[in-house]
Amino acid sequence: MEELKQRILKDGIVLNNSVIKVDKFLNHQLDITLLDNIGSEFYHHFMDQEITKILTIEASGIAVATLTALYFNVPVVFARKSESITHPEDKYSADVYSFTHEKQFNIFVSREYLKPGDKILVIDDFLANGQALLGMARIVHEAGATLVGAGIVIEKSFQDGGKLVRDAGINVFSLARIKNMSDSGITFL
Amino acid sequence: MEELKQRILKDGIVLNNSVIKVDKFLNHQLDITLLDNIGSEFYHHFMDQEITKILTIEASGIAVATLTALYFNVPVVFARKSESITHPEDKYSADVYSFTHEKQFNIFVSREYLKPGDKILVIDDFLANGQALLGMARIVHEAGATLVGAGIVIEKSFQDGGKLVRDAGINVFSLARIKNMSDSGITFL
Repeated sequence: MEELKQRILKDGIVLNNSVIKVDKFLNHQLDITLLDNIGSEFYHHFMDQEITKILTIEASGIAVATLTALYFNVPVVFARKSESITHPEDKYSADVYSFTHEKQFNIFVSREYLKPGDKILVIDDFLANGQALLGMARIVHEAGATLVGAGIVIEKSFQDGGKLVRDAGINVFSLARIKNMSDSGITFL
Repeated sequence: MEELKQRILKDGIVLNNSVIKVDKFLNHQLDITLLDNIGSEFYHHFMDQEITKILTIEASGIAVATLTALYFNVPVVFARKSESITHPEDKYSADVYSFTHEKQFNIFVSREYLKPGDKILVIDDFLANGQALLGMARIVHEAGATLVGAGIVIEKSFQDGGKLVRDAGINVFSLARIKNMSDSGITFL
């Protein structure tokens, strides 16, 4: 998605070889026009898949998931994060290790909002090590629903998440795939 | 907003005299059609105010703020929450006491995204004790921006936040004001 790549080049701040800050349009301030165009891209890619629900994780996935859902005319469910590892009866949950925060946390979704028969599109802002996406995939599987695919805004292709999730059979569609980045610039795949 | 009130009556779960769970359409699963209509209500109420930016707090305010911003064609900034009370140079921050979680936390916004001259509309899902809204108002004031008003989805009018924030001069527009609630039902103002 050319508009997104240009925006990453313009406003992304490369902190080091593996961390890029996109607070200006995606993770703190939200450029609603850009995010709406991103939603449209996801819609046109997955529109024939009879999606019934969109799944994301709080907090920074919510805006993109919401604008994507407006095109599909389906509800969003956002997985919640908890630092306590609990598996209550009425929730689907998965433990996810965050390399960014260097700790394990738990994500959960109420059983009420994912059902067998649901065709789920996962939306997230970043794909890096793939742990969050694999956690959501486990939750969808546990619910007996079908994971149709995953729409990712920015994939850090130099990390191993992309290979992991594709090897796990997840149909990933990333709008910008960063091949490498450093002080001297960002290269896309 | 009649559609919202009917939805609260249908799907809101009153846990006790002060807590209502609206996870089915607002706080965990998001009914995007309803939230889009809510955004339209906020737009029609504040459309003449030359809003330049919408401010909310992660996580459950983000979806409503996003759909409201789509009508206004302005960016959203979401204040982040932190449990550590830090006041770094490059952030506006406010300490907010959460009666729900019985602890103080810190909300912050990068200085880059709120400027003097900005006319800010705050959007949030709930108004109860008013602490979150007062915290956001302090941040807007600290930035030298103007707080035009606050669009609230559900106000618990039996708690003191509504009076506190209106006494502080904030122009509050709540779509559903709950007068009281119990096992036997919910009454709106």
